[in-house]
Amino acid sequence: HQEFDFTDHSHRRYNPLTDSWILVSPHRAKRPWLGQKETVAKSTVPEYDEKCFLCPGNARVTGGSNPDYKSTYIFQNDFAAVKTDQPTLPAHMDFKDPLKNKLFKVESVRGNCFVICFSPKHNVTIPQMKHDELVNVVGAWQQLYNNLSKEAREDGKPFKYVQIFENKGTAMGCSNLHPHGQAWCLESIPSEVSQELKSFKKYETENHCDLLGDYVKLELQEKTRIVVENDSFLCVVPYWAVWPFETMIVSKKKIASVAQFNEKEKDDLASIMKTLTVKYDNLFECSFPYSMGLHQAPLNAVGEELENSWFHMHFYPPLLRSATVRKFLVGFELLGEPQRDLTAEQAADRLRALDGEVHYTEKL
Amino acid sequence: HQEFDFTDHSHRRYNPLTDSWILVSPHRAKRPWLGQKETVAKSTVPEYDEKCFLCPGNARVTGGSNPDYKSTYIFQNDFAAVKTDQPTLPAHMDFKDPLKNKLFKVESVRGNCFVICFSPKHNVTIPQMKHDELVNVVGAWQQLYNNLSKEAREDGKPFKYVQIFENKGTAMGCSNLHPHGQAWCLESIPSEVSQELKSFKKYETENHCDLLGDYVKLELQEKTRIVVENDSFLCVVPYWAVWPFETMIVSKKKIASVAQFNEKEKDDLASIMKTLTVKYDNLFECSFPYSMGLHQAPLNAVGEELENSWFHMHFYPPLLRSATVRKFLVGFELLGEPQRDLTAEQAADRLRALDGEVHYTEKL
Ligand SMILES: O=P(O)(O)O[C@H]1O[C@H](CO)[C@@H](O)[C@H](O)[C@H]1O
Ligand SMILES: O=P(O)(O)O[C@H]1O[C@H](CO)[C@@H](O)[C@H](O)[C@H]1O
Repeated sequence: HQEFDFTDHSHRRYNPLTDSWILVSPHRAKRPWLGQKETVAKSTVPEYDEKCFLCPGNARVTGGSNPDYKSTYIFQNDFAAVKTDQPTLPAHMDFKDPLKNKLFKVESVRGNCFVICFSPKHNVTIPQMKHDELVNVVGAWQQLYNNLSKEAREDGKPFKYVQIFENKGTAMGCSNLHPHGQAWCLESIPSEVSQELKSFKKYETENHCDLLGDYVKLELQEKTRIVVENDSFLCVVPYWAVWPFETMIVSKKKIASVAQFNEKEKDDLASIMKTLTVKYDNLFECSFPYSMGLHQAPLNAVGEELENSWFHMHFYPPLLRSATVRKFLVGFELLGEPQRDLTAEQAADRLRALDGEVHYTEKL
Repeated sequence: HQEFDFTDHSHRRYNPLTDSWILVSPHRAKRPWLGQKETVAKSTVPEYDEKCFLCPGNARVTGGSNPDYKSTYIFQNDFAAVKTDQPTLPAHMDFKDPLKNKLFKVESVRGNCFVICFSPKHNVTIPQMKHDELVNVVGAWQQLYNNLSKEAREDGKPFKYVQIFENKGTAMGCSNLHPHGQAWCLESIPSEVSQELKSFKKYETENHCDLLGDYVKLELQEKTRIVVENDSFLCVVPYWAVWPFETMIVSKKKIASVAQFNEKEKDDLASIMKTLTVKYDNLFECSFPYSMGLHQAPLNAVGEELENSWFHMHFYPPLLRSATVRKFLVGFELLGEPQRDLTAEQAADRLRALDGEVHYTEKL
């Protein structure tokens, strides 16, 4: 009678944040890879690129030009996915046809989109930036969150939630190497966030505790999925991770949003992001692609919505085995359920063991 | 006072199958693309490749060799994500720690995985295959579904659902050009399917009608999202499509699974798949990548599970603007909610207008 071995036998794990399951097939990492390989970005990128739309002083696609900025720089996206000035639909669109009313549910969405340049330098990325520069990035997120809250409150702007994120690397659809993130601010709460808020609320109702509070407690006790931690934040490969080296940075005590960060927390977030991303780059000695973003309280949240929010960040990096071999979430994953080829604990072991201080390029 | 224009103003549409929302930003198709470009597969692939693991007669990775097959050929995946012979976990895993029991939900998963070669020829794809050959592919799916049902029923194999799918093209993680699909058979119903079954059941309870039956009625009446139809099947860009040229093939009357297909239905599915994929290839004059798969009744389903199932196929193709420019579902999509850059109706218009009979390579 064979024992169940989590590092070898297939199992499904439950993600309590999104109320979904993922299939873990740890033995599968052994198969050979004959498919597409990613190209590795060349390392000879200049500090200033005259053709870049984001470099200081340069002309922008839609006219005008960037100021000669020295730190972070936030501007409105020239190709915003949502706009403030568009007509709206009635809250419950009436198509007159009862079948359509049932099957064609639709809502109008207004909002605004921003680009956040992390640095004037074209050729750096978060793991290569200085601590103070990263504190400025966190500060820029805080400032943006506060400004949008104020515009919604005082000027009646249709802003309910701001999704702050970064797509890094061409494999993650990033169309410009210049270090930057985005912020899409909508009058509706995006599905992923609203699903998390629903799960938080359910957990609180059932257990009179915070889901992420309990989860932090458990991870600090187990230790097997911890990548790095400091006074304010914990970084783990979540028990239910989908992407091979997916991580979550979560505040140790309840903080609803960046708006509530004190100086120490800004400092600590900057430092844990730096350590994590240095480890990421050191893993396959390449500029590690990912999409990452902040999950936090909706703008001007009060009551339950504010009470249930718990600041955290998700990092979704696609690479699986090397700088060129990624995990594809395709056929089975899209039609059936997400599947991964190594356990969360195996991924955490590897990330934990890596140097999180010295970037591999500094060692060459 | 401006009217709301669905082809220009941002809105969210609801997907009643998966109970989720997607953001539509139709004006966004206008932004310039400076990011990653896909490579176009070379067209000089030979009919037989001696290095291919799937070609007739060739040696396989794990030893043994393929028979000299002439039509379709099904074999067990050499790197199966699930296996029949592994230990199991108790239905409710007891970690002893109450916190863990709440937050670390886990299930063991047994099953089996198969590869289905569509043709002995290394250099063809579905749109380039003859009608009779495609009828054989549908026949192979039917046979596999029936065999797995029987093995579960008679030999107590841990098979509850078989997810049949195809990853086509390197952009969709396909590691071998040889035309083939896969079938992953699990003892659990994968999340996407179980979510659909939940939605079907809810709709039936509330409306005493089938969700997809009503949807087919509506699409036949509206016509704006139809790509092609025949006696048995309808192909539409669903109202709630996420991928730019996503389509759904759905049976016009209720059919629970391929097991119930008669000869006419096998014929009609082969023919609508061929027309759709010829249109796909003709859209950007390239071998159009996609992941596609069948959604149908669980194996040996009875009662509600059988009653609520309605055969359909999803096609998820990544290309957006050309053979080399794809849509990336990344930062906002992963952290917030799926977003698309053209409406379902705009995509359907383009696909409908294309030639669905003559493949572009035959016209050169
Ligand atoms: O089985 P293949 O074709 O080698 O692998 C491909 O399809 C699988 C099922 O969708 C995915 O899990 C893999 O990431 C993908 O590369
Ligand atoms: O806005 P960008 O960087 O041009 O575009 C990228 O990020 C967006 C938000 O995740 C996605 O919708 C696009 O598909 C992707 O290419």
